[in-house]
Amino acid sequence: MRGTVLYGSKDIRFEEVPEPTIERPTDAIIRMAATCVCGSDLWPYRGVKPLNGPTPMGHEYCGFVEEVGSAVTTVKPGQFVVGSFAMSDNTCAHCRFGYQTSCEHREWVTGAQAPYMRVSMADGTLVTTSDKPSEELIPSLLAASDVLGTGWFAADAANVKPGSTAVVVGDGAVGLLGVLSAKHMGAERIIVMSRHETRQKLAREFGATDIVAERGDEGIARIKELTRGVGADSVLECVGTQESMRQAIQTVRPGGFVSYVGVPHGVQLEGQQLFYTHAHLHGGPAPVRRYLPHLIDLITSGEINPGKVFDLELPLEKVAKGYAAMDERRAIKALLRP
Amino acid sequence: MRGTVLYGSKDIRFEEVPEPTIERPTDAIIRMAATCVCGSDLWPYRGVKPLNGPTPMGHEYCGFVEEVGSAVTTVKPGQFVVGSFAMSDNTCAHCRFGYQTSCEHREWVTGAQAPYMRVSMADGTLVTTSDKPSEELIPSLLAASDVLGTGWFAADAANVKPGSTAVVVGDGAVGLLGVLSAKHMGAERIIVMSRHETRQKLAREFGATDIVAERGDEGIARIKELTRGVGADSVLECVGTQESMRQAIQTVRPGGFVSYVGVPHGVQLEGQQLFYTHAHLHGGPAPVRRYLPHLIDLITSGEINPGKVFDLELPLEKVAKGYAAMDERRAIKALLRP
Repeated sequence: MRGTVLYGSKDIRFEEVPEPTIERPTDAIIRMAATCVCGSDLWPYRGVKPLNGPTPMGHEYCGFVEEVGSAVTTVKPGQFVVGSFAMSDNTCAHCRFGYQTSCEHREWVTGAQAPYMRVSMADGTLVTTSDKPSEELIPSLLAASDVLGTGWFAADAANVKPGSTAVVVGDGAVGLLGVLSAKHMGAERIIVMSRHETRQKLAREFGATDIVAERGDEGIARIKELTRGVGADSVLECVGTQESMRQAIQTVRPGGFVSYVGVPHGVQLEGQQLFYTHAHLHGGPAPVRRYLPHLIDLITSGEINPGKVFDLELPLEKVAKGYAAMDERRAIKALLRP
Repeated sequence: MRGTVLYGSKDIRFEEVPEPTIERPTDAIIRMAATCVCGSDLWPYRGVKPLNGPTPMGHEYCGFVEEVGSAVTTVKPGQFVVGSFAMSDNTCAHCRFGYQTSCEHREWVTGAQAPYMRVSMADGTLVTTSDKPSEELIPSLLAASDVLGTGWFAADAANVKPGSTAVVVGDGAVGLLGVLSAKHMGAERIIVMSRHETRQKLAREFGATDIVAERGDEGIARIKELTRGVGADSVLECVGTQESMRQAIQTVRPGGFVSYVGVPHGVQLEGQQLFYTHAHLHGGPAPVRRYLPHLIDLITSGEINPGKVFDLELPLEKVAKGYAAMDERRAIKALLRP
């Protein structure tokens, strides 16, 4: 089969790769219904994160179980499944506490931008839908695999409650789905930092009440103004840079909650500054598996439509176009169909 | 009157200072029943924190209201009161959220190591006891003013719940009262990092179940061992150095809670490292005012006896001896009687 391999900065290829096979009795093979390009794929694509040789790309997936190993008991061939970008046993202490992305046996998914992929610990990792989903649900189910689950964790970790004022830093797919999540959790006011018209529009559709286009100290001042000088109850930091983290910490009210869900690149927090902000801080790789059953329910019942973040759809073999469009911010998120 | 003034590194003097007077109609004057030396007083005493000239010292206090300004309505002369080391209006948005140490009108107490002191925003800051407390309750009520309230906040911010496993980093008065607080909140296991015999003994008396004398990576490994490789649910960081913060973050389980309540000195947190620990982080100057009514109840009803942290009692005029004893770790905490 052909799959997606990154060779170096901006050198993405769709080329012959080995077809996955059951390696351990707990494995499953998935036939992809759809996959996509993630904002985090852009770090190595842009050369910011160095590669150890050619790297199979992709970690977002949903599709049909093609084959299972002999020890797999909860999923079977033909079922439709969604899994997280982290594979987990879902039985260790960390998983039981709901932190499956810190599973003792955690493995990161790679190579999902391909027609087939192997999933480890299939019983722990995969969640089935009750029926074969209709075609129009596929983008939303795919979103659940990472960006929705991550945006949801961002809102949850930022303690969004009915009546909260939430700020979302970042207008990528995760930030936008952070808006959707905050709205669903009852936030009364959702302020999004964005200066990109298409994204602002989708943010409003997902529930944003205010858009702040200013950045840096001006952006911080604007949010303080919008919150009557108090600051926000919840801030969802969905970027992962020093500047976005600074925005987040400076706009939360004392005792408020900052979540951070984008892998931090070059972020340093000065202890004494943080101390006097009185902020709560929580983040990390989103434990999407914790939320998957609930998110799948919300999607299949039509309560949420996170699939709207895909504003570009391409055949899988055109994957390089998807990377380029996202890199140049011409697309929010590119869906790929095998 | 004579009060305590710090002139420079290890140069503490008990000398003539102006007697405090009502400056604003919201002020009160307190006649000190007892005051004490705080671990945080040692930073400037050791010259770690530079001074702007001679500085009146002390921020822990309890005593009798001597006089009140014309706008004060909730306390009156003759009543016994305890206040926090931060003076607050207790009405602004931050105070209403329970973060009185971030009060919009916050002022830090200074000059409490004296027979009399002025308290701003007396209605917001001071909490009265229902009766004149007996002599043996004075040390505990004094502890509520800072170290108990701070230890309590450490346990609360670290989410200690019935059944929790808690680690306390630091065996100073705040750490020891963090043990007492965690015990009171129902922690099943309380592991204290300490290599000082007197403090270990008091920690056990307050509820510690395990003592770890190892430090650095050995200390971390020991705690991992004690928690079956999982890590602690709650870690109370009660020191404020890079090393103590590292200990805390490395010993909490993914999804667990680290609180930090000592002013950080030279602490830097690397974003990506923190990200992968999945730790919750919360701290800052303890909003002692939030807890004072409850803590006073627990003390006057005899449920807790935090006053045990005072293992040295001196007449106020011997204050310099108190600083020296704490600096050399000969005393946990020095109580001073005017």
